[in-house]
Amino acid sequence: MIIDCHGHYTTAPSRAANVSRRTDRRARRSVRRAFARRHSASATTRFARAWKARSSSCSASAARSHDLLAARVGDGASHRHRADQPAVDARVHDLIARVCGLYPDNFVGVCQLPQSPGVPPANSVRELERCVNELGFIGCNLNPDPSGGMWNGPPLTDRAWYPLYEKMVELDVPAMVHVMRRATRTSTRPARITSMPTRPRSLQFLTSDLFRDFPALRFVIPHGGGAVPYHWGAIAGSPGHEAPPPTELLLENVFFDTCVYHQPGIDLLLRVIPAKNILFGSELLGAVRGIDPETGHSYDDTKQYFDALDLSEETRRGIFETNAYRVYPRLVAKLAAR
Amino acid sequence: MIIDCHGHYTTAPSRAANVSRRTDRRARRSVRRAFARRHSASATTRFARAWKARSSSCSASAARSHDLLAARVGDGASHRHRADQPAVDARVHDLIARVCGLYPDNFVGVCQLPQSPGVPPANSVRELERCVNELGFIGCNLNPDPSGGMWNGPPLTDRAWYPLYEKMVELDVPAMVHVMRRATRTSTRPARITSMPTRPRSLQFLTSDLFRDFPALRFVIPHGGGAVPYHWGAIAGSPGHEAPPPTELLLENVFFDTCVYHQPGIDLLLRVIPAKNILFGSELLGAVRGIDPETGHSYDDTKQYFDALDLSEETRRGIFETNAYRVYPRLVAKLAAR
Repeated sequence: MIIDCHGHYTTAPSRAANVSRRTDRRARRSVRRAFARRHSASATTRFARAWKARSSSCSASAARSHDLLAARVGDGASHRHRADQPAVDARVHDLIARVCGLYPDNFVGVCQLPQSPGVPPANSVRELERCVNELGFIGCNLNPDPSGGMWNGPPLTDRAWYPLYEKMVELDVPAMVHVMRRATRTSTRPARITSMPTRPRSLQFLTSDLFRDFPALRFVIPHGGGAVPYHWGAIAGSPGHEAPPPTELLLENVFFDTCVYHQPGIDLLLRVIPAKNILFGSELLGAVRGIDPETGHSYDDTKQYFDALDLSEETRRGIFETNAYRVYPRLVAKLAAR
Repeated sequence: MIIDCHGHYTTAPSRAANVSRRTDRRARRSVRRAFARRHSASATTRFARAWKARSSSCSASAARSHDLLAARVGDGASHRHRADQPAVDARVHDLIARVCGLYPDNFVGVCQLPQSPGVPPANSVRELERCVNELGFIGCNLNPDPSGGMWNGPPLTDRAWYPLYEKMVELDVPAMVHVMRRATRTSTRPARITSMPTRPRSLQFLTSDLFRDFPALRFVIPHGGGAVPYHWGAIAGSPGHEAPPPTELLLENVFFDTCVYHQPGIDLLLRVIPAKNILFGSELLGAVRGIDPETGHSYDDTKQYFDALDLSEETRRGIFETNAYRVYPRLVAKLAAR
């Protein structure tokens, strides 16, 4: 079985429909209307079918095969303080639960958190609890910078995050730490790429005491760790930093997905990061949807880069499947029930 | 000969001494005082000696060898609109010229530009002209985001930058495109690392018409292109982007330095970026000053990573020396005069 830990549910209502400040009652009404337009039961079903079709159609040609996919939210997050953010998130999560319910053998849910600039991380505890206990989700997506580029909130090592971490440990769910950049006036098409966690700042926790305080806390860093594996030497050699090698640092707390869309990048990832800390991911229906003119394959069909390598069966199975069981224990229970 | 294209003059006056808004006259006086304290002739001389000693001492042990180093400014840039920015820059450039004058066989100058948020790039033309024509500098450092993280100014492909590009072409000098991030309240030690150009957004010009308008314009992207080589697949495969391979795209306009501080990173750089577009750099006296406990060598002694490789003599000499002549033609004239 192949477990893909990084997918997107990408038909959340457009930002424009949600961005303005509103009173609570008007906010709720506006959110209801936006969802009604774009997320009727039939629209969600169509999306779920298209998603499943894309993920499984290629498996027939052995080019692409995903047996299970963790859905997370790719849009609908705001970088302003918004009264309606929790309402937006709750609706998005209900829709993800609906998709997972339609195809329980293919998808399992991961939630975003109702984060906004200036709002304490503790405020996300309730929705996380609801998603895990009521909707059956197995993890969450944590934005280390709800401001979308200002980095003016507490860093991930700050105690303000601790109530959320405590709940994550209690529920035994990991967080994917994914930066979401604010769209700016001058943003152009490649803006989406900039949501990659390219800034080592978002990985400060690696050299902090965080995992001493929470030995069972688990983070997944998407897109192969952003710029981190390529610049590991810079992190290790910077004053006041002097990081030990990844083998000693990542342990059972930090994992990197394989959303790196070419062979040289995957090779670097495998060379720098221990295989036991790598989880297969492709970001199905994400930002990278082009086809490599040289090979004829989708760039985001990341399995091909592993198929081209001479890996031991243990390493391959760890990356494609068994590492995910350590990171998402609730997935194991779900599979057993299936 | 080895030409190192990325060094820092790091004793610019502290930001705290410069940050407040002031009237013009008070600004000039304050800048004079700050420089007088930290940049007396003797202080500059001491710095220049230490710099040269570090760069040449290791060459005796064959571990490190820099025969010529292009100095650029590592500090003193502000991310607020400041009346005193041009005055600060002019003083810093005078000091760099002084260092280069003390050791003309070792250092050659590169200037920063008096950029501030909201100030048109055209305003930098005069200081660039002064640095090249009067101080003998051979290039400049261009900050694609003077706001320090807001990205609310025109992108590098915007015509607002064209007067500056015209002057660069006229003077035949390249620009190193180096993001400088604003220090935030919650910044901690690794903040300096975040000044790496990790965001592909800063490389939008690759797929624009910019180099059709300016075929002779040359950019150097520091730190091995930030996250770009590691994520080349994501750039190539993103909608509306579909970049051709680097070989067709970079041509004679875009170059990457080798400030990547470990072997796997350098190997990836060489695999993705054509060797003729790579310039040797170490960021001497930069952010990465640690020593690798495994090898006993400085992480920023980037020559070691090339010494470990089996490169052809042509490739090696291109990266270490001759590529730089194409990028910095004024260096050729300087060497001929020497």
